[in-house]
Amino acid sequence: MKTIFTLNDILQMEKQPRTNLINSLPGIRAANLIGTNNSSGETNLAIFNSVIHIGAHPPYMGFIMRPVTMPRGTYQNIKDTGYFTINQVNEKIYKQAHQTSARYEDSEFAATGLTPEFTSTLKAPYVKESKVKIGLRFVEEQHIKINGTILMIGEIQEIILENNYLNESNIVQLQQAEAIGVNGLETYYRVEKVAELPYAKPDGNILK
Amino acid sequence: MKTIFTLNDILQMEKQPRTNLINSLPGIRAANLIGTNNSSGETNLAIFNSVIHIGAHPPYMGFIMRPVTMPRGTYQNIKDTGYFTINQVNEKIYKQAHQTSARYEDSEFAATGLTPEFTSTLKAPYVKESKVKIGLRFVEEQHIKINGTILMIGEIQEIILENNYLNESNIVQLQQAEAIGVNGLETYYRVEKVAELPYAKPDGNILK
Repeated sequence: MKTIFTLNDILQMEKQPRTNLINSLPGIRAANLIGTNNSSGETNLAIFNSVIHIGAHPPYMGFIMRPVTMPRGTYQNIKDTGYFTINQVNEKIYKQAHQTSARYEDSEFAATGLTPEFTSTLKAPYVKESKVKIGLRFVEEQHIKINGTILMIGEIQEIILENNYLNESNIVQLQQAEAIGVNGLETYYRVEKVAELPYAKPDGNILK
Repeated sequence: MKTIFTLNDILQMEKQPRTNLINSLPGIRAANLIGTNNSSGETNLAIFNSVIHIGAHPPYMGFIMRPVTMPRGTYQNIKDTGYFTINQVNEKIYKQAHQTSARYEDSEFAATGLTPEFTSTLKAPYVKESKVKIGLRFVEEQHIKINGTILMIGEIQEIILENNYLNESNIVQLQQAEAIGVNGLETYYRVEKVAELPYAKPDGNILK
């Protein structure tokens, strides 16, 4: 039996049920930790479900941030230092990753027991316990007019895989990396590979 | 044993291995079909892995498009009619959904055997076989300066769930909806719920 919500139904919902419904509509998304530091070297770590592919050549990735109302944190650190890291959440650390969303006074690394790790390529901290880590240089931000949400974009400087999770086509194998996905802000999922389909051509042979 | 790629390594890769690597770095993402039509009512359907949450109140969703080089298709239809639909891909239709990425002369609905469905709320076509469908009114586009990629944003007008996939908190239950995720452009995954974690507070009780 169908369930239908109109825009008016949505606008009249109470805040929490509306937030939960709308946040969970896009479906499964990767859980990623974004690591930054301020100009004094103090680290910050925050979980995001909005990391997206922006381009392959040159290699760009981005993520969506809520409007910035607090003076500190991920946004300000990226603006101050010019660098950030994206660290894939795996099954062993998803609870600690979720816990980074609490409002801590000090670094979320210390508070959650995750370990900052540095390379010579960039100053932003990686998460040692992550298995797929990407170091980026900030290149662009777009402020969305209708609600002030911000799209942050970086150019990939370095990719670190704890093991070789790539198949023969150079595609990251999420199940081997024990990658964890999230829907909305709190429901975590593991993934199970169903198929790797060939490039689609009009003769439609995968449907036959 | 670690595998490390520098920016220089990435830039020197051949095109296909580089595209595969960079596209698969963000991790699991939802597979969604975007339905549109042109001003003559001819339908178009295309698979996207870039649908994102933009805001809950008012309810906004967006998706990332590659730079527009062809005069027809999803982008032009949205600009011409002002409406589009987002249809979650499920396990029964993921091959047909993938096949919409082939270059067809006519509608991808007819070519792949998916069925257009209309409501009185908006003229854009839904996918009858999808179980979670969202109708949107186009409200904003942002053109990313560094590579011309486009972020398209719509306001939700209508949500249609084929069954009640919502839990008591109003969160869509992806496993019940048989939602399918995708990594990169071709690797499809089903999802299995691991946990629903509470709102994180600094006392960190989920870590104890």
